[in-house]
Parts: sequence; structure tokens; C-alpha cells
Amino acid sequence: MRHLLSTKTLTRDEAIEILDVAEDMAETQFREVRKLPTLRGKTVVNLFFEDSTRTRISFEAAAKRLSADVITFSAKGSSVSKGESLKDTAQTLAAMHADAVVIRHSASGAPQTLADSGWIDAGILNAGDGTHEHPTQALLDAFTMRKRLHGERSRGRALDGVAVTIVGDILHSRVARSNVWLLDTLGAEVTLVAPPTLLPVDLGPWPATVRYDLDDAIAQRPDVLMMLRIQSERMHAAFFPNSREYSRRWGLDDERLARLDPASIVMHPGPMNRGLEISSGAADSPRSTVLEQVANGVSVRMAALYLLLSGDREESTRV
Amino acid sequence: MRHLLSTKTLTRDEAIEILDVAEDMAETQFREVRKLPTLRGKTVVNLFFEDSTRTRISFEAAAKRLSADVITFSAKGSSVSKGESLKDTAQTLAAMHADAVVIRHSASGAPQTLADSGWIDAGILNAGDGTHEHPTQALLDAFTMRKRLHGERSRGRALDGVAVTIVGDILHSRVARSNVWLLDTLGAEVTLVAPPTLLPVDLGPWPATVRYDLDDAIAQRPDVLMMLRIQSERMHAAFFPNSREYSRRWGLDDERLARLDPASIVMHPGPMNRGLEISSGAADSPRSTVLEQVANGVSVRMAALYLLLSGDREESTRV
Amino acid sequence: MRHLLSTKTLTRDEAIEILDVAEDMAETQFREVRKLPTLRGKTVVNLFFEDSTRTRISFEAAAKRLSADVITFSAKGSSVSKGESLKDTAQTLAAMHADAVVIRHSASGAPQTLADSGWIDAGILNAGDGTHEHPTQALLDAFTMRKRLHGERSRGRALDGVAVTIVGDILHSRVARSNVWLLDTLGAEVTLVAPPTLLPVDLGPWPATVRYDLDDAIAQRPDVLMMLRIQSERMHAAFFPNSREYSRRWGLDDERLARLDPASIVMHPGPMNRGLEISSGAADSPRSTVLEQVANGVSVRMAALYLLLSGDREESTRV
Repeated sequence: MRHLLSTKTLTRDEAIEILDVAEDMAETQFREVRKLPTLRGKTVVNLFFEDSTRTRISFEAAAKRLSADVITFSAKGSSVSKGESLKDTAQTLAAMHADAVVIRHSASGAPQTLADSGWIDAGILNAGDGTHEHPTQALLDAFTMRKRLHGERSRGRALDGVAVTIVGDILHSRVARSNVWLLDTLGAEVTLVAPPTLLPVDLGPWPATVRYDLDDAIAQRPDVLMMLRIQSERMHAAFFPNSREYSRRWGLDDERLARLDPASIVMHPGPMNRGLEISSGAADSPRSTVLEQVANGVSVRMAALYLLLSGDREESTRV
Repeated sequence: MRHLLSTKTLTRDEAIEILDVAEDMAETQFREVRKLPTLRGKTVVNLFFEDSTRTRISFEAAAKRLSADVITFSAKGSSVSKGESLKDTAQTLAAMHADAVVIRHSASGAPQTLADSGWIDAGILNAGDGTHEHPTQALLDAFTMRKRLHGERSRGRALDGVAVTIVGDILHSRVARSNVWLLDTLGAEVTLVAPPTLLPVDLGPWPATVRYDLDDAIAQRPDVLMMLRIQSERMHAAFFPNSREYSRRWGLDDERLARLDPASIVMHPGPMNRGLEISSGAADSPRSTVLEQVANGVSVRMAALYLLLSGDREESTRV
Repeated sequence: MRHLLSTKTLTRDEAIEILDVAEDMAETQFREVRKLPTLRGKTVVNLFFEDSTRTRISFEAAAKRLSADVITFSAKGSSVSKGESLKDTAQTLAAMHADAVVIRHSASGAPQTLADSGWIDAGILNAGDGTHEHPTQALLDAFTMRKRLHGERSRGRALDGVAVTIVGDILHSRVARSNVWLLDTLGAEVTLVAPPTLLPVDLGPWPATVRYDLDDAIAQRPDVLMMLRIQSERMHAAFFPNSREYSRRWGLDDERLARLDPASIVMHPGPMNRGLEISSGAADSPRSTVLEQVANGVSVRMAALYLLLSGDREESTRV
């Protein structure tokens, strides 16, 4: 694997390989000494044009547990704010021999631009670009589903026939996009639930069923219910019901939780707005995988860094 | 030791153990290679809800010299500023397998809440909470006194009979609180000197004598004179004499320095307001331990991290 | 070498030694494992009173590749902003056993003050002070020239007879100052080109020729054309031609590039204002060394840290 830019372009075999390597990584985290010497001498740059403490420290922890050096390049107060172009930033990091660049950017497509440009030879990991994709989030979600639903017999398997319902602001969510593509590739059946104003106008090409009513969706007995974060900063008041109305119609409260199938799981990418899109009862129930998702995030990012940075990158398939 | 939350709950034996381990740590800092492999593979998170460069880099240096990985989670610009609760932050760090969390918070009791919550299994180190406590500061102060007053014969000893006078804003000072409890436990006799408006209304339970006049206190020939930082940002003008008046009545100037017993020492937790609570003459005199305190801070924090993170934490006594 | 404060005080032998060690360092960057154990256990503090992401991460990468621990002390939000003096900051870092302090400061002479003060025993590396000097930039520039012009036979050599033309805001440029002194020491012949308002009033002591016309300077067939960054934030409108006028008269556009000698090189310290002092055609031409300069920056900083921190610093010559 050369880069990790999107889940849309991942093959089924590549996706399963990442999940399987992440299983290996997860096991090392229960050893006496968690640190692996694998990426000693490699330099991972966290290039964050948007703040995201959780994602940044998850990648930082992953890189350090593989013994890589981590350099954080926060765009604020940097030459980027003096008008330096992405090209010049990328070439600068290349000249410093960055081996991997973990990039978060407000512009959809920025990681792809970096990977296609020839400006830098490093492996590019998309840590969220605009409303486009957030592939490591989708991979950690798939990892979490596989682990919960298949248990010990996860390794090598996909998610064929698993019914996943994603609820919330689909329109602005890169998490939803990355999940839809990856889950489809892995054989899951995806349902999207949202107010019409929070859905893309043209859902034609999305491999997913759309519903507008959460109770209808719950009645279909999904294996997985994934609640998205309501990002009020991304929304315009005019298109959005007020919080109370949103919570009443599309929030997962305790009563809806009780109607879910006992074997089903509740997911959320965090940070949660407790009482808005998810109740504390749901967030903290045994069915919730919120914290496993965080833990699995480190394992999946270790796997991605490992696959990108160790071995012969030149001969590997481009993702 | 499971956590380090306060000095009030430290036993005499526990306190002396920390100081003794800190002696060992201090010795390693004069070796050719200062770095110890002790905490290799452990992750220490600096969770700072308030800025504090000095304390943060002291803990960072301590953790790195024990070969731990350090991840800094500054609350500014993080999901915390998007309204994430302490609970969710703690659980996120737990899921990432943080082994220790060094927390500074503006709310008194936040570290205790974290330790009691069950949200996270990591060792919690209080790096200053509101006006409550700052235990590693008190421990480094006690370490510094022991070293200066007992010299080579420090190890295993307490501070029985040592007369310590603490001068300044007792009301808002977590440093003063932590020192009062620890010094009492170690057998020292504590005197507090302050304007009445900078003293707590009810000093009943404090194991300390109160004086309002610095010259009277100096006449008692204390072994240790500890000057606190005047934190003008914490004070309301109405309750506070102006700077010149404060300096004249409660500042340590060269003339008062000259009246101190030759064997006595002058302490300050830093950063100093030179010319306000302490003159440059006093700050830079051979009697001043200001810089030893900084150096000892690294050793004491190495000791605390070592005692919390190495060995069998489960069986150890809860502090 | 005890400190690296300026190029003005570097001897020719010292300068060549740094460049030669940097050659060794550059070679290690092409090994399988780039990390050297040389400075294991040493602590390098990045003390940045001004933001400079590029210089900071270049030093950080250099220190980490030598296995040093790096602690970043950004003055913003620190006790420095509460009024702490440079003296107290320095003594604090000394007490924490900092082995090297990389300092960037808006005040010319701050690094020299630190080195002369006796406040701290660490090696001081000037990473840019006011409008005074930026010695590692000049050293990486010299390294880049030597490599391009002498190729394989660089080692041990200076730049005797090399004609270097520096164009731009000489008045405010610490890069220009450090280059003029170093290039003169290494035997190069320096020409400065700028509008009269961007030149110092008294150029008497500078070992350089002054020209006001870029086309005249190009007609002299320099070996090296170094374009400086126009730092509009440092300039007062009254003394400065507008951008279009500046670009027309003192910018390196494609037409001027074409008139340069084929064997000559084009340098820029970055970040570039493309279209202002340099065209994209010039910036990206094979003659441009912009990215080599960045790569060489890491090697030169590794060399400087190595020379300051390994071996017996006490007996070495003061720079």
C-alpha cells in the first residue's frame, strides 16, 4: 500500500489485510512492553490544517508505539498562515525526509492532491478532508464491528450481510462517506437515516438505502446503529431543526435503545453530544462500542502506518 | 502508590519513600547517559486545561528521562473546547492505553474526580487543581529543604522540628496548601504570614501558626522562608493592597534577607516577580534555593512516575 | 565549539568543520535506519519567542535523528507572557539540565546574552535573533553552494572566488547578514542588490559590493543568485515600492532566469512568495536549490548539535 486516501478505492482484500494487521497490533498492546521497534528511524509528520486533538493524538500514539519519531506541524502560526502553498509545505516536508504525512485539511481532496502531485514521496494518510473522507475512522469502525460480531473468529473475515444503520448529518459527514464505501466493499448492507436537509441531494451512486424515520429503521433490527456527531458549526440554521426537535426525532434515547435487538451494537465516532444525538444511557450501555472504537483507532492507525512504511513501498499497489 | 492527588492523604512513610526515590533519580542525572529505560513503552499524557509551561516541561523531561512516550493534550483548541466532558476525555485517554495522566485543571478536585471515577485505570498525577493542591511542588520543596538542611544524611529522614515560614497569598495558593499538609506530616512547624485578606477565613483545621507581620516572623529565626508568587490575575483589587504597599510589608528585600539566620534558606516556587514579593538580591543569594527547586522538581516527578508506573500498581496502597 | 551564535565570529576552519560534519550527517540520512544514537539522553530545548514552524521542525528533526529528547518551549501562553525574564527562563532550563537551547527571539543579541550570562551552561544555538543573524541558515546555504559547485570534491573546501549575489530586503534580513559574514570568511565575493531603502545606511564595514540594479548584477554572471523573502510585515509602506514595482525591478522572473549563466544556481531561504520576489518558473527550475536547502538544513543542524553536545565541550574553543 502506497497511501491511505479513501475507502472508496480500497479493494476488499486490502481492507481485510488492514483489519488483520490491526488485530496483530491490538495484541501487542497487552504485552509488558507495548512498544515495537518496527518504524525506528522513520519520521511521521502530523500536518493538521484543522484542529483535531483526538485524531492527532491517536496517530501520535500509534506512531510512537511503532518507535517512529513524530513531528507535529500545526498550520496555525506557521508559514502556512503567511500564505505558503500546500505545494511548498509538501516539498519542505519531503526535503526533511518525512516518511509519512498524516494530513487533516478543510479542503476535500487535499490528501489526494498531495499524493498525486509528485511533490513528496512520503506515504500520505488522510486524517479527514473537508466533507470527503476519513478512512481510518471507517476502518476502525469496521474493525470494531468485526470484533464485536465475529469475536475470536474475526481474522480474515469481512462483514457480509451485516445490517448497519447510520444516523445523523450524512450531508456533511466524511465519517459517513468513508463508512458507506468501506461497508459496501466488505459486504454489509447500509441504511442511512437523516432529515432530508441533512442528506445529499443526489444519493444515486451511494450503495445505501435511505430512510427518514429512525423508528422505522430500528424496526428493521439493524446489527449496528451508528450515531453521527451533530456538528452545529457546519450547519446553517435554516436547514436544520432545532436541537430539541432533532433529538426527539433522530436522537438515540433510552427508549429507542431498549427497542434495539439485544445482540446489536451502538457506535459513535466521538466526541459525543450527550443528550443531543445520543443519551448518556445509550452512550454508556454495554452495547455501546464508543471506547472500543477509540482503542481500535490506535491499532488501525498502527496497521496503516506499518503497511505504508515498512517493506518495499515502491512495488506495492497504489490505493 | 496508585495515584498522587494530594499531600494531605500521604502518610509519612509514603512521603519519605518518594523523597528517597527522588534522591536516586537525582543521582542518575549526573551520569554520562541520563536516560533510564524504566518506563519504556509506557505512555504519559500531559492533560493541561490551564497553561503552565514550567510544570508541563518538568513532567515532560521527567517522563522522557524514564524513556516513556509523552503525549501532550492541551485543552485549547481540542474537543474539550467543543464541550466534551471530563468523563469523555478520560475514557478516551483510557481507551488509548494511557498509563499515567498528569492533569492540571482550574477546578479544585478534578484530579480526585478522575481517580475516583473508574473512567480510567491510569495513574493520576495532580499537577495543580484550582486553589486546592499541587502535591509535586510540595514534595520538591520538602526534598529541597531536606537536602539543604540534612545534606549527605538526608536519606530516610523527615523534617522534624524544622521551622518553615510561608509568606504571601495563602488564600489562593495550592502550593501553600500542599506544603502545609506535607510539612506537618513530616514533622515541620509551619508559620503562615499574609495580609488578613489573603488568608482563608477559617484556618481552624490548618496545622499552622498565623502571623500578619513579616518582621515578627523573621525575628522567630525560621530555618526556611518560602515566598509565594503574587498572582495578581487571581485577585480583586478591593481586597489587595497595591504592589508597592505589598512589597514594603510582605516582600523579602535585601534588608530583611540580611536579618535572616545565616543557616536559613529562601525558597520560591517560581516564576518570581522580582521586586515585588522578592528582591533580586534575595532571589540570587546563595541562600536562595529557587533553581535547586526546579532541578529537584524533575527528580521528584521522575520518582512519582516511577512509583506509579513500575511494579504492581494493583496491590499498592491507594493514596 | 561551545555555542553557535553568529557566523561573524566563526573562523574559516570552524566553518569548514561544520560543513564537513554535515556531509557525514547527510550521508546517514540515506541509510536504512536514519537514526543515530549519538545524543541519547541529551535534552534539546526549542525556545521559540517567535513562531517559526520551518526552523523549529528542522531543528526538531535534527535532534531526534541524533536520538536526543526534544522539549518545545513556546513563549506564547507561558510564564514568559506573565513577565518572566529571559534570565529566569534560562536558569529554569539550566536547572532542568537542558544540554542545548535552540533560541529564536525578536531581540537582536538575545542568544549572545544567554551565552555570556552564566545563567545556563547549555550550548546555545541561535535560530534567528531580530535583524541580527541566523547562522544555521547561512551554513546550510554555504553547504548547498559547496555541494552544487564542487560536487564530490566538496569535503574540506571553502568557496574561494565564488561570486554570490544576494537580492532583496538586506536591511531587515538576518539571513543576509549571516551569509555576508560566512561567505566572506569562506572566500566568496558577495554582491548585494536592493532598493536603496532596503539597504543599511552604513554599509562601510560589510565585506560586500552594492548594486541597485538587478539586471546589472545578472550581467556580472554570478555563480549564485540568492533571492530573499520580502517580509511585508517588517516594512513600512513609506519606504517600500509597491509589490508590482518591486517584482518588476528586483524579482527573479523567467526572463531574468534565462539570462543567468547555465552553471549558476538560484537560492531562496523559503518560504517563497511566488510571483513576488521569485517566479514559479525560477523556483521550480533545475537551477533552483530551494529544496536542497531544506534538506541540507537538517544535516547542518545535526552537525551543529553534534559538535556542541558530543565530546568535551569545556575544552573546546568558544565561538
